[in-house]
Amino acid sequence: MPDESRLDRQLCFLREIDRLKTVFRQTWLLDQSRRENDAEHSWHLATMALLLAEYAAEPDVDLPRTVRMLLLHDLVEIDAGDTFAYDPAAQQDKAARELAAAERIFGLLPADQAVEFRRLWDEFEARRTPEARFAAALDCFQPLMHNYLTGGRAWREHGVAASAVFRRVQAIADGAPALWDLAERMIVEAVERGDLVKEQ
Amino acid sequence: MPDESRLDRQLCFLREIDRLKTVFRQTWLLDQSRRENDAEHSWHLATMALLLAEYAAEPDVDLPRTVRMLLLHDLVEIDAGDTFAYDPAAQQDKAARELAAAERIFGLLPADQAVEFRRLWDEFEARRTPEARFAAALDCFQPLMHNYLTGGRAWREHGVAASAVFRRVQAIADGAPALWDLAERMIVEAVERGDLVKEQ
Repeated sequence: MPDESRLDRQLCFLREIDRLKTVFRQTWLLDQSRRENDAEHSWHLATMALLLAEYAAEPDVDLPRTVRMLLLHDLVEIDAGDTFAYDPAAQQDKAARELAAAERIFGLLPADQAVEFRRLWDEFEARRTPEARFAAALDCFQPLMHNYLTGGRAWREHGVAASAVFRRVQAIADGAPALWDLAERMIVEAVERGDLVKEQ
Repeated sequence: MPDESRLDRQLCFLREIDRLKTVFRQTWLLDQSRRENDAEHSWHLATMALLLAEYAAEPDVDLPRTVRMLLLHDLVEIDAGDTFAYDPAAQQDKAARELAAAERIFGLLPADQAVEFRRLWDEFEARRTPEARFAAALDCFQPLMHNYLTGGRAWREHGVAASAVFRRVQAIADGAPALWDLAERMIVEAVERGDLVKEQ
């Protein structure tokens, strides 16, 4: 028989994280029927990690740890909401909002798992380990691909500048350098099509 | 520089699987705002595997392989659609539809990854390894929990019988026996509330 109070905490967490399915991002699905939510985004990234592991900067990257990070990386947005990567005002207090969310959400877990899951989230946020850098690269590459394939829909809606995208996607050069050329070609083509604002 | 034709195949697969976000299941989200889609369901199961690994029937279950299976297990539904677990007519040709889907979808990948991903899906379907049995247990437990917590909404819509649910959730007794008592309590209570049809 399992420890009932331990299982209760785990089930409480399981119910709580169902809400990630109702947190919507700026990114559009490829069929443009609607925006993407954080839960399906997290699934797409974890699956990308399996598919694209060979492009990680570090050849012996710990893939299971990368996957665990990607499954958990956006849970804080249940409380903090999705912060658009190209909204400087919202970015200002993002860290504080997400930290409070991490305290509450991972705090629902049994103590050992609260520590384990929180450490994975902290590792992802710090972007210092090869696993976190590869995860961050995928977290940049996927919305770039979706924007590129939907005529820059989210970029156009917000008048995003090419320079801002170039700054953001440096994470790809850092965590998955073999994907950088492709990322750069997508951005250059998006500028030529007028999907991104080209500064003088 | 990556092999361009290999990377092309991988990106083709990545674009294709975005469609899993538009395949809807019978299960309702806990807030009952809408039904759940297969992509967010797969994320929920993979995260459950991290959370509930201690309840797997086999104590040294290979958790990363379980997670990989869960990330990929519903991809065939892009072509085959979601088959309601309690629809006997649709269940009849489910295997053939899903096999054809597996051929097409995993066939988009580079040959080595087509074999690797297909093997994981075959392993999940066969339910013979401890990892596949634990994955199958979670794939039963999550919709059971969602039905229990939404007043049996999907069960009521289809007039599902308690005996059919008991048969289906045997996968929990098999793959995660420590969760069986809880599963049984949920079903018994659902019958008492009238959410499940009780046969004479």
